[in-house]
Amino acid sequence: MRFEINKDKLLYHLLIAQKALSNKTPNPALQGIKIDVEDNHVIITTSNSDISIKILLEDGSLDIEETGSVLIPGKYFIEIIRKLDGQTVSLSHASDNMLKIEADHSDITLNMLELDDYPDLKFNEKKEFVKVNVRTLKTIIRQTAFATSTIENRPILTGVHFTIDGKDLSGVATDSYRLSQKTINLEESYDAMKVVIPGRSLEELMKILENNQDDVELHFDQNRVLFKYNNVLFLSRLLEGNYPETSKLIPQEFPVQIKFNKEQLITAIERASLLSSRDGQNAIVKLNVRQDDVIEISSNSPEIGRVLEEVYPVDEIKGSPLKIAFSSKYILEALRVFNSSEVTVKFTGEIRPFIITGEYDDDMLQLILPVKTD
Amino acid sequence: MRFEINKDKLLYHLLIAQKALSNKTPNPALQGIKIDVEDNHVIITTSNSDISIKILLEDGSLDIEETGSVLIPGKYFIEIIRKLDGQTVSLSHASDNMLKIEADHSDITLNMLELDDYPDLKFNEKKEFVKVNVRTLKTIIRQTAFATSTIENRPILTGVHFTIDGKDLSGVATDSYRLSQKTINLEESYDAMKVVIPGRSLEELMKILENNQDDVELHFDQNRVLFKYNNVLFLSRLLEGNYPETSKLIPQEFPVQIKFNKEQLITAIERASLLSSRDGQNAIVKLNVRQDDVIEISSNSPEIGRVLEEVYPVDEIKGSPLKIAFSSKYILEALRVFNSSEVTVKFTGEIRPFIITGEYDDDMLQLILPVKTD
Repeated sequence: MRFEINKDKLLYHLLIAQKALSNKTPNPALQGIKIDVEDNHVIITTSNSDISIKILLEDGSLDIEETGSVLIPGKYFIEIIRKLDGQTVSLSHASDNMLKIEADHSDITLNMLELDDYPDLKFNEKKEFVKVNVRTLKTIIRQTAFATSTIENRPILTGVHFTIDGKDLSGVATDSYRLSQKTINLEESYDAMKVVIPGRSLEELMKILENNQDDVELHFDQNRVLFKYNNVLFLSRLLEGNYPETSKLIPQEFPVQIKFNKEQLITAIERASLLSSRDGQNAIVKLNVRQDDVIEISSNSPEIGRVLEEVYPVDEIKGSPLKIAFSSKYILEALRVFNSSEVTVKFTGEIRPFIITGEYDDDMLQLILPVKTD
Repeated sequence: MRFEINKDKLLYHLLIAQKALSNKTPNPALQGIKIDVEDNHVIITTSNSDISIKILLEDGSLDIEETGSVLIPGKYFIEIIRKLDGQTVSLSHASDNMLKIEADHSDITLNMLELDDYPDLKFNEKKEFVKVNVRTLKTIIRQTAFATSTIENRPILTGVHFTIDGKDLSGVATDSYRLSQKTINLEESYDAMKVVIPGRSLEELMKILENNQDDVELHFDQNRVLFKYNNVLFLSRLLEGNYPETSKLIPQEFPVQIKFNKEQLITAIERASLLSSRDGQNAIVKLNVRQDDVIEISSNSPEIGRVLEEVYPVDEIKGSPLKIAFSSKYILEALRVFNSSEVTVKFTGEIRPFIITGEYDDDMLQLILPVKTD
């Protein structure tokens, strides 16, 4: 194996591949980046227990002298390429399973990993796949994945539940204290389908997706999903099991509705969270709709002090006075994913879940369970 | 106590005071910021076991209604002021030793600390003091303090040894593996003097000093030094004990001298450090002056691989071929404090300390002890 390539081009793709590289893995081969040099292109592959990435690298700067495959220790390889001087880097398989890296005045030899130990990964593309615009896919992930559970005792809740129904693609996530739901419209109609994709896989996928007009193809298999995005294949396992029925959790009647300026509400809740003896964002904050239609956001920590914020609603309040308490972390995370600058908080009752919607956030809702206080 | 002030002005000074605020202290009073409101100004005081800061706050936005003194929990107070909306903040001493903070639509009450528990700090200015331009003071600290020891078994080496001799002010720091030395010229002549100032105090002082043309006054006391910088008084303890005689450590004869482009030398050593099984910058790097006057920088780690860098000297090498090995951390830290873009490395022998100087770094030298390799 021997080829030359523009150093920045190689680094750009290595940093994508790095998303599926694990430093802690029982299988040392998975600390490696697999490089297959073929006649006209180079394939870069990485994998950990949850996701695998395969990149097809074709570039004008690519000069292939000899084909072949190698498995290179990922962490050291990326650090070396990042630090090299010069425009071009030359990689070649030297004797004794060593990789020779040459650039400018640098001559580096890196011990390689055993290629035979690398798993045989299948990045199978299907004939039938779902096509989504990359911006739309990013929106649905950004507005749902944060609400997945990080606790492993109900593994199914660590994923986002995607359902396809005709032209609708919905994502739902809940950790049982809050719920996020967003539906987007697809350009074509597809057969009905339900899968649960791990939240962490989606977070890594987000880092690869850019803000352009390209499409992403979703190829579904028995227990895996393959995202095809330009020259990158991103494979994630699916979560097995039945996702809970969430539609019943969402109240339908909202006797009290308040429209807020989103930034004002966020900063008031942030300040009310400051004086909490509980760590950081886990503060409990109270919301009180006063008779005079001013909203009080408050918190009280006998050892530290108390905060009282007055917030003026954007429109007249619908409904009657109400007192409710909630986790500041949950409401802040929910508010921050809205694109709308004004949001409507809709209450059913003082101990019932409440929801948040926004005029410019179509088919999206954030639901939060209140907490009981004295 | 009751006053109003521009919020940003208050925050700016609180962030200076924060440098002497400790979260971990056996004395809870030292977690507090002391505020003394007098007729025409406010005094902000903080202290930990090593340094104390006193700020005289006079500002057009200051509106004092009632004088008095309070001790406010520092961490919460700074976070609140940082997060407030509105231009102006009002602070007042409410009943039950509570501080009332009002701004815009926020009404915050913070439990205060017991003022009587606060130590009586003396920020005594002397009639005789040393005057140094702030940029010059920053230079001497930046070029020496990094070389102080961080290990407490020889406490005196955790400080920078400052000596005044007529118009010369020198700083020397060593952790016994490397040594930094810089001398600056003062505008006036002073009596001879020697003190050792803790490196950590100097690092905190650096964060307060700006890049302007102001002067800093150094007031020396028996076991303390007071830096006066505009409206800020910064008090540090001095280290007690005899600083070792360092001048004998510096070789005077340099049979081999090599002038390098500083950036080329830094990046070559950085790359040679990458493949080290020792953590990060503690890699051992070898330097080899070849017969053909090319310098080889190399490292070798049997488990990981090896790096060989060729560096071309700026001028003809003075002296004969030589091989030497050193800690990459020490040489990189030394190289990075030079202002010169070309540096001269001067060798006495393969197991003797070597020094680095730079044409545009007057009266500064960096010394490094080599390590033995096979």
